[in-house]
Amino acid sequence: TDPLQIAGKTYGSRLIVGTGKYRDFEQTAEAVAASGAEIVTVAVRRVNVSDPGQPMLTDYLDPKSITYLPNTAGCFTADDALRTLRLAREAGGWDLVKLEVLGDKATLYPDMRETLKAAEVLISEGFKVMVYTSDDPLFARELNDMGCVAIMPLGAPIGSGLGIQNPVNIRLIVEQSTVPVLVDAGVGTASDAAIAMELGCDGVLMNTAIAEAKDPVRMARAMKHAVEAGRHAYLAGRMPKKRYADPSSPLAGLI
Amino acid sequence: TDPLQIAGKTYGSRLIVGTGKYRDFEQTAEAVAASGAEIVTVAVRRVNVSDPGQPMLTDYLDPKSITYLPNTAGCFTADDALRTLRLAREAGGWDLVKLEVLGDKATLYPDMRETLKAAEVLISEGFKVMVYTSDDPLFARELNDMGCVAIMPLGAPIGSGLGIQNPVNIRLIVEQSTVPVLVDAGVGTASDAAIAMELGCDGVLMNTAIAEAKDPVRMARAMKHAVEAGRHAYLAGRMPKKRYADPSSPLAGLI
Amino acid sequence: TDPLQIAGKTYGSRLIVGTGKYRDFEQTAEAVAASGAEIVTVAVRRVNVSDPGQPMLTDYLDPKSITYLPNTAGCFTADDALRTLRLAREAGGWDLVKLEVLGDKATLYPDMRETLKAAEVLISEGFKVMVYTSDDPLFARELNDMGCVAIMPLGAPIGSGLGIQNPVNIRLIVEQSTVPVLVDAGVGTASDAAIAMELGCDGVLMNTAIAEAKDPVRMARAMKHAVEAGRHAYLAGRMPKKRYADPSSPLAGLI
Amino acid sequence: TDPLQIAGKTYGSRLIVGTGKYRDFEQTAEAVAASGAEIVTVAVRRVNVSDPGQPMLTDYLDPKSITYLPNTAGCFTADDALRTLRLAREAGGWDLVKLEVLGDKATLYPDMRETLKAAEVLISEGFKVMVYTSDDPLFARELNDMGCVAIMPLGAPIGSGLGIQNPVNIRLIVEQSTVPVLVDAGVGTASDAAIAMELGCDGVLMNTAIAEAKDPVRMARAMKHAVEAGRHAYLAGRMPKKRYADPSSPLAGLI
Repeated sequence: TDPLQIAGKTYGSRLIVGTGKYRDFEQTAEAVAASGAEIVTVAVRRVNVSDPGQPMLTDYLDPKSITYLPNTAGCFTADDALRTLRLAREAGGWDLVKLEVLGDKATLYPDMRETLKAAEVLISEGFKVMVYTSDDPLFARELNDMGCVAIMPLGAPIGSGLGIQNPVNIRLIVEQSTVPVLVDAGVGTASDAAIAMELGCDGVLMNTAIAEAKDPVRMARAMKHAVEAGRHAYLAGRMPKKRYADPSSPLAGLI
Repeated sequence: TDPLQIAGKTYGSRLIVGTGKYRDFEQTAEAVAASGAEIVTVAVRRVNVSDPGQPMLTDYLDPKSITYLPNTAGCFTADDALRTLRLAREAGGWDLVKLEVLGDKATLYPDMRETLKAAEVLISEGFKVMVYTSDDPLFARELNDMGCVAIMPLGAPIGSGLGIQNPVNIRLIVEQSTVPVLVDAGVGTASDAAIAMELGCDGVLMNTAIAEAKDPVRMARAMKHAVEAGRHAYLAGRMPKKRYADPSSPLAGLI
Repeated sequence: TDPLQIAGKTYGSRLIVGTGKYRDFEQTAEAVAASGAEIVTVAVRRVNVSDPGQPMLTDYLDPKSITYLPNTAGCFTADDALRTLRLAREAGGWDLVKLEVLGDKATLYPDMRETLKAAEVLISEGFKVMVYTSDDPLFARELNDMGCVAIMPLGAPIGSGLGIQNPVNIRLIVEQSTVPVLVDAGVGTASDAAIAMELGCDGVLMNTAIAEAKDPVRMARAMKHAVEAGRHAYLAGRMPKKRYADPSSPLAGLI
Repeated sequence: TDPLQIAGKTYGSRLIVGTGKYRDFEQTAEAVAASGAEIVTVAVRRVNVSDPGQPMLTDYLDPKSITYLPNTAGCFTADDALRTLRLAREAGGWDLVKLEVLGDKATLYPDMRETLKAAEVLISEGFKVMVYTSDDPLFARELNDMGCVAIMPLGAPIGSGLGIQNPVNIRLIVEQSTVPVLVDAGVGTASDAAIAMELGCDGVLMNTAIAEAKDPVRMARAMKHAVEAGRHAYLAGRMPKKRYADPSSPLAGLI
């Protein structure tokens, strides 16, 4: 057993999935089940979790067995994010939250100064903050030292499916962090998730890669296996790369 | 259920593992079990499967539940390979075999002409030939058309752990083949195996990546998940890669 | 003719080189000459440009024909950087400067907040600021909008020679900038410099790749050609990538 | 001075260019001039070099200053290639030839057995054979040992512009060869050519990358610089790749 611990709570799965972009709540629930995720992120501003006159996500994903992680998708200022999460806490009692303060509509990259500002306030108000961040190791360290409960660097632009662009930065963040590091954004297919875990990340968060696959439920299953594969490979310690069978060759070390 | 079919027989696992380079037969057996493999390759010339005075692999891996696939590791001519496999058939009754005729001691790349020659004779003698080949799609097609029961292109030099060097060639081979294609050689870690499957391969064969990991049994488990991850991802149909969230940008299509 | 224009001045070469890490000033001068660079960066705190009792760089590189670009290498705060550049302006009259405010001794990544702070003050004091930045497009845009005369994102950690890690970010910065973009840091060999230029960068700055090559002077010549090669290729408009000769194949678009 | 020597003759340029796919002979000549190439390949079956009633390539590219290298583009058997080159020798006296025997219309990959057969005959008839080959190091070695005067492995499918797919194989071929190795096919832009040279190749041959660029003449100039850049970088000996400035970090060696 090799559980993921976030803010003192233990989870069997290292995969966190989003709940947006699915055909309907039924497909969402099926995909979440196939993924094995125990935490789902919910865009508080977009997903109905309180109006009983409309279909409610909570009817499909039982909040007693699945941890709801409210996020601030669509917030472009610290104030906006704060308002959103305070509201979520009032409505649902959630204090484990995912903070994202966006700075750019095209790439959905975070505004790091607003992110830091919001994180500081949230922590002071007793929130447990999992934070979406750029892959700049300096800001990631600051968020770690400030008391965030998970550091969530982007692997590539949200919704791009490009895979991890800068493994050096992700690895630097892993090495310096004292709380879990989860790659958030950029994963496109199973091997991308495995690579994130092989770099030593503690988990992966994704939405589009599953929801926009041709068969989302099967892709969710793929991702479940991919995260386990990458985690085991990281812990197992991979073989060294050799250039070819004969290490005495001058090629060794060149390419 | 999505079984692998080779020469009319059906297998639940798409991972084939070697039996060399382990500490002892106990570790071999543990790793094979963790990998979920139903087929293991055995270097007929190196592994004791017949001398009851010595420890025998068959005492650790039951040939009734695990398919033994005799291979010709160490053979550098067609004649040598033929001799080896005829002997194996006499000794163990095996006719499903893995042919490899090496052409180079440093890289362990195949000698393609000797490989073609040996494959032809073996097929004429009733063997079911799974064949190790370079990633040249022309030779792979010839081996397919000749009646080999599985095409096994190398992803990188045997024992190198470099991962698939030429995905274009692997994909070309997948597209043209009418029998299963399994990447054989070159996988170093879990994501490499996932990538092979995402290219549409029907399976993966590996030995060093597991046996030379720091914790071989855990790496075997990683590989089991990786192959399933990659297979599901392939069948699920991955999301398209986007450049970033706004597809109208001039970057789209450039990088 | 396709000159580089920075702060209203025109340069024939798009390669800027550092002056550190060479064996001696003679080698520095030879390498600069071979590189064709018309701008050299000088670490004001490290290089002797004023004590006539010691060997002086100005005796080897004539400041009349080569533009000296004082930099703030080794400064870890905005104040430190400001002090250094004010001193440089007093000493040498230089107002075209390269600002770098480091945030981390291991990676030499910039401290973006201190960088922004220092840039703002410098611009208000009449400096023309070429600025070393992370590859975060949001900060790069801010520096552009603030009035910096060149944006210089890192391709990889200073002195790493890893080549451009995140071409998507570099390209995003190129697209949004109204002043020249020069990749600063990370280039290891000629093709890395060509790739930077093919992404649309206006120039490249490097030091270690030349100074720590076995033959620095020849590598300087390599870099001169590489920057021109990449620039011409960018302007020429490369052929589209095809999957293989027959575009009707199902592989097209898959890999 | 670092000339390329092929079959006893010395060339100042390491770039060989094709003459197909241009708008007209004028553009061909302009591009060749810009490339600095001293050798051009000519598809004997396609290009008019003998009918004085039609425009002739020789009117645009003077065979006295440019070496014509007849090739067997479009030949799918050894016999076909032999016929073509014998005819070329009769017509133009050329005995330095480029042999390519194709095996596949989609990828234009070589048929290696027919290639070997044709090479053997041509050498016995006194031709000096520069030979297009797959990147299989075993066949490349055989062609080298047989007496070919240059080994020309493909980097990627002809006309694909994908860049070198398998640098390990190219490097293996460079290490084992006693005659010049030139990457033939697959280059798409300047950095691809630089990479080929940085691997230690003696030269590069290309056609589509130049002819199908938006501005072929400028791309020719880019390629001239790229080949020189890569050559100088190879001879200069690049700096070692570091993980980041502080080599004591645990990241060193991991990524």
